[in-house]
Amino acid sequence: MRQPATSQTETDMTADTINRRTALAMTALAAGIPILGAHPASAEAPNSKSTGKPAKAKKLAIILFDRFETLDVFGPVEMWGRLKDYEVVTVCQHGGLVASSQGIETRCRYSFADSPQFEIIMIPGGGGTRTEVDNPAMLDFLRNQDRATEWTTSVCTGSAVLARAGILDGRKATTNKKAYAWATGQSQAVQWQGRARWVVDGKYITSSGVSAGTDMALGLVEKIYGRAEAVRIAEGAEYIWNSDPDNDPFAVKNAR
Amino acid sequence: MRQPATSQTETDMTADTINRRTALAMTALAAGIPILGAHPASAEAPNSKSTGKPAKAKKLAIILFDRFETLDVFGPVEMWGRLKDYEVVTVCQHGGLVASSQGIETRCRYSFADSPQFEIIMIPGGGGTRTEVDNPAMLDFLRNQDRATEWTTSVCTGSAVLARAGILDGRKATTNKKAYAWATGQSQAVQWQGRARWVVDGKYITSSGVSAGTDMALGLVEKIYGRAEAVRIAEGAEYIWNSDPDNDPFAVKNAR
Repeated sequence: MRQPATSQTETDMTADTINRRTALAMTALAAGIPILGAHPASAEAPNSKSTGKPAKAKKLAIILFDRFETLDVFGPVEMWGRLKDYEVVTVCQHGGLVASSQGIETRCRYSFADSPQFEIIMIPGGGGTRTEVDNPAMLDFLRNQDRATEWTTSVCTGSAVLARAGILDGRKATTNKKAYAWATGQSQAVQWQGRARWVVDGKYITSSGVSAGTDMALGLVEKIYGRAEAVRIAEGAEYIWNSDPDNDPFAVKNAR
Repeated sequence: MRQPATSQTETDMTADTINRRTALAMTALAAGIPILGAHPASAEAPNSKSTGKPAKAKKLAIILFDRFETLDVFGPVEMWGRLKDYEVVTVCQHGGLVASSQGIETRCRYSFADSPQFEIIMIPGGGGTRTEVDNPAMLDFLRNQDRATEWTTSVCTGSAVLARAGILDGRKATTNKKAYAWATGQSQAVQWQGRARWVVDGKYITSSGVSAGTDMALGLVEKIYGRAEAVRIAEGAEYIWNSDPDNDPFAVKNAR
């Protein structure tokens, strides 16, 4: 029987939480939206010195679009939200609200125009990728960010968009196994892998469909912080991690 | 090797999608928020006859609050978003935006005041449950909804809030195993289970921490639609379903 590590699931309010709440309150005020938990104190400028904890130094951006797949995004967010050096933020072309394929509306922290350089980017899949592969603004944004990222990642058919941007040229990569023909048809320059929960090639990490993204997210944690930290984070979320990138129960038929 | 069923992951736009997009566009317009994919046609009144598909007849409500746990919500949303009869909607006390513990902002479709009776409700866990157990508005809302739900469910420490509302009195239930002492301390009237991925007692289904919610969500699909449908949905999301509610790798020590 595994002995779970100390939980990170249920934490008290940290400096990061306060910073996020302040940012949330300010954007909500600007838009005239009521916000739960907002009160006068949360509108004060964040001050890491007063709370004793430094703000996270780096940013990990989730790139959203209309009809993204819900779990492609929020499995990784759950795991990456526990990293000590990376703040998870959301980005979409015009900022504002964006709806997933399952109808949940998420607010984007940044638009393409006001995005800083991010250390890590992740693009999810979903029905909306059928539009995004033909969106020059998306492809340009990905190319520009990718020039200076530490890691460029995708879940599900997000890799089809990276492929169309030329970012995966000559690289090994994978994608959703249920949309494999469409996704791999977006570029002949990629070495597509039909049997892989996720694939690492240099700084590029691409995962198979939907739930595979959560396993990939922990794989990235392992790359940056080592296996013990990845296991600690998984257990904090009571997550049964499929930690072998080659263990793919949903591989395409006749895959090597 | 499992043979995955036909995918539901990557779908074309349906009547439901159009209805959701219309609702999203209207709320965004009211709040002055730009929205991706919004265009004049999406502001038209939805008409199921014109699209040939009926709207979903029932509503499954996710009850949100400040500092909910991200994956508690979005694992189940991914699975329940594929149900043919239930529309997944979000609710929070005052409506508007609410931020998860991982800093992602989600918009609530309903406030407590304008919520209809929901057929299914789910309350997640997260640091915010420490506040919600003492929030009379939340406890009243849960009690009032519970009187006529088909199913009342929770993930993680969400069951602590249900317990404080008296909803689980005399029932078997479980909760987050990393916050077990606090959660079970909220009520002595519940038969707390220290070893369970999730627990079904009548119309009440409670899960263990975070990731267990996704397994529970598929367990509910099995209860309503049968095992084949639950497996189909899991495979559509390339999800490795822990389908045995008694298989709990994170059980508390010395649990029966």
